[in-house]
Amino acid sequence: MADRIVAGLDVGGTKTLAVAVVAGTGAVVATVRRPTGTGNGDRLLQSTGEVLGELATAAGLSPDGFAAVGVGVPGLVDRSAGTVRHAVNLGVGADPVALVAHLGRLASAPVVLENDVNLAAVGAAVALGCHGDLAYLSVGTGLAAGLLLDGRIRRGAHGAAGEIGHLPVDPNGPLCECGQRGCLEALASGAAIAARWPSGDGEAAATTALLAAAAAGDPAAVAVLDEVAGHLAGAVALLAQTVDPELIVLGGGVAEAGTGLLDALRSALRQRAARSPVLAAIALADRVALVPAGIPAGALGAAAVARHHLRGEGALVPVVGPA
Amino acid sequence: MADRIVAGLDVGGTKTLAVAVVAGTGAVVATVRRPTGTGNGDRLLQSTGEVLGELATAAGLSPDGFAAVGVGVPGLVDRSAGTVRHAVNLGVGADPVALVAHLGRLASAPVVLENDVNLAAVGAAVALGCHGDLAYLSVGTGLAAGLLLDGRIRRGAHGAAGEIGHLPVDPNGPLCECGQRGCLEALASGAAIAARWPSGDGEAAATTALLAAAAAGDPAAVAVLDEVAGHLAGAVALLAQTVDPELIVLGGGVAEAGTGLLDALRSALRQRAARSPVLAAIALADRVALVPAGIPAGALGAAAVARHHLRGEGALVPVVGPA
Repeated sequence: MADRIVAGLDVGGTKTLAVAVVAGTGAVVATVRRPTGTGNGDRLLQSTGEVLGELATAAGLSPDGFAAVGVGVPGLVDRSAGTVRHAVNLGVGADPVALVAHLGRLASAPVVLENDVNLAAVGAAVALGCHGDLAYLSVGTGLAAGLLLDGRIRRGAHGAAGEIGHLPVDPNGPLCECGQRGCLEALASGAAIAARWPSGDGEAAATTALLAAAAAGDPAAVAVLDEVAGHLAGAVALLAQTVDPELIVLGGGVAEAGTGLLDALRSALRQRAARSPVLAAIALADRVALVPAGIPAGALGAAAVARHHLRGEGALVPVVGPA
Repeated sequence: MADRIVAGLDVGGTKTLAVAVVAGTGAVVATVRRPTGTGNGDRLLQSTGEVLGELATAAGLSPDGFAAVGVGVPGLVDRSAGTVRHAVNLGVGADPVALVAHLGRLASAPVVLENDVNLAAVGAAVALGCHGDLAYLSVGTGLAAGLLLDGRIRRGAHGAAGEIGHLPVDPNGPLCECGQRGCLEALASGAAIAARWPSGDGEAAATTALLAAAAAGDPAAVAVLDEVAGHLAGAVALLAQTVDPELIVLGGGVAEAGTGLLDALRSALRQRAARSPVLAAIALADRVALVPAGIPAGALGAAAVARHHLRGEGALVPVVGPA
């Protein structure tokens, strides 16, 4: 098994990241990054197939040289049909796109399809060193969580596990595009930050600008950052007081703006703990982390599920610690 | 194994309920109910031991005739030490009470100790027919959830899984005794209902009176019920959008007031779904249920973990359905 290579693809709304990984050891032997073809299902299939071909070349393999392929997409995944629907950022609507069949033909290998946030949770566990019990809090344009509980992805009975972005936390908060008021996504997502602190292109740039202005002492920036960090602290508490994962890892476009956001989040969590012994007892500020800079969590997670497919059953990531 | 009998004890703040169950079939062969001895650890040990003895007599067994004992307590359980702490309703504080050692000596059998809400989740799954994926929403004096995910109890890394009562959902809500503002427990627990609609003795009586007044058309009662049901709907949505269990079962003293509360909860869930397609898609009103009247969910769950201990590893309750 040590010689077999698997592919892990993370298909995002703008770019696709892919890694080739040694099945036996988990070592990364090649990485490819290129724009995602979006707008309709055919473009998605073509672009994803091309990335797989480039990755094979980069890894010194023939196109059918991978032992297994894992692929993550930002949409509603039907794992038994091997299709994706409602991937808004990819221009994919209600018609299912048969991604597994397409990649399976190209690779002549088993293909594992999964929601991208779930795979980022797996990849974060791999990158941070074998913690098999964590929540990945994805803060990008939207806000959602991926749950890896006791080494297993928690998808839920309706595939809605981790969909915390549309939980209301303030009845007088802004209207959310989901139809409710004061949802976490309307208060603490990248889009919410960009609306409050418009600057540059996209949520990472807005967050970077906000952090810089707050660090320079701009009182308006400090107020916005405090408020956003407070709501992110609420999202962390929500995950801790429902599933209580060993670790809560912040990722996504907003998290890529750097450690300033993590510092603000920790400060907000300490403020909450100072008010409430219940919160102090669960030590939230010590249990949050960032995805390490430059680590492609989603693609690593995709490779991990491909490796897991080759190994067969059992926990996806070994559980370490008291969980 | 068909002849072996296990005991399941549910130690509550006022009463202890115990069932004797055939290990092989799950059939209940005896039930005992008596006041809990509270105030300190010694009284708890004595009272629980006496219930176990009465249950053995009722089942036609000698005191050491049970094959295994399961016991649920409303407090912080250390399963490896076999102790309970911080069981406020039992008068047990920071000093650990060695319940497992005490019952083990009396019964000469293995004793499994677990938090009572977790066991009620297991018992609800047993009572409702083998659904191994559910959340039990306990609404009594406090508010908390027990999670049974893929047939396994989810306790969490710090034993805080399901502690949703102290999640804030309204920054302008009432001060909670935990130190935060607008917690679910401060808005929708039995204590919150009794504070808004004081009548009779305890939260079940207050809820019964509130439901009767609302059914009779009292506008003040209708307003309070709508508000409470709205917050319970929030708790249901919170569970569905974090762990997405197959079923969400309402239990505890408030739920014992009858189906009127379930009707109000379903109505509140439908109102939310009408506002939000995200919520409509996960069909919450169809996924809530009550613990059937007269079913001792906690004691049945305690017996189920005792039976599981005899069987060894694997899922506690078989998972049925798409989970």
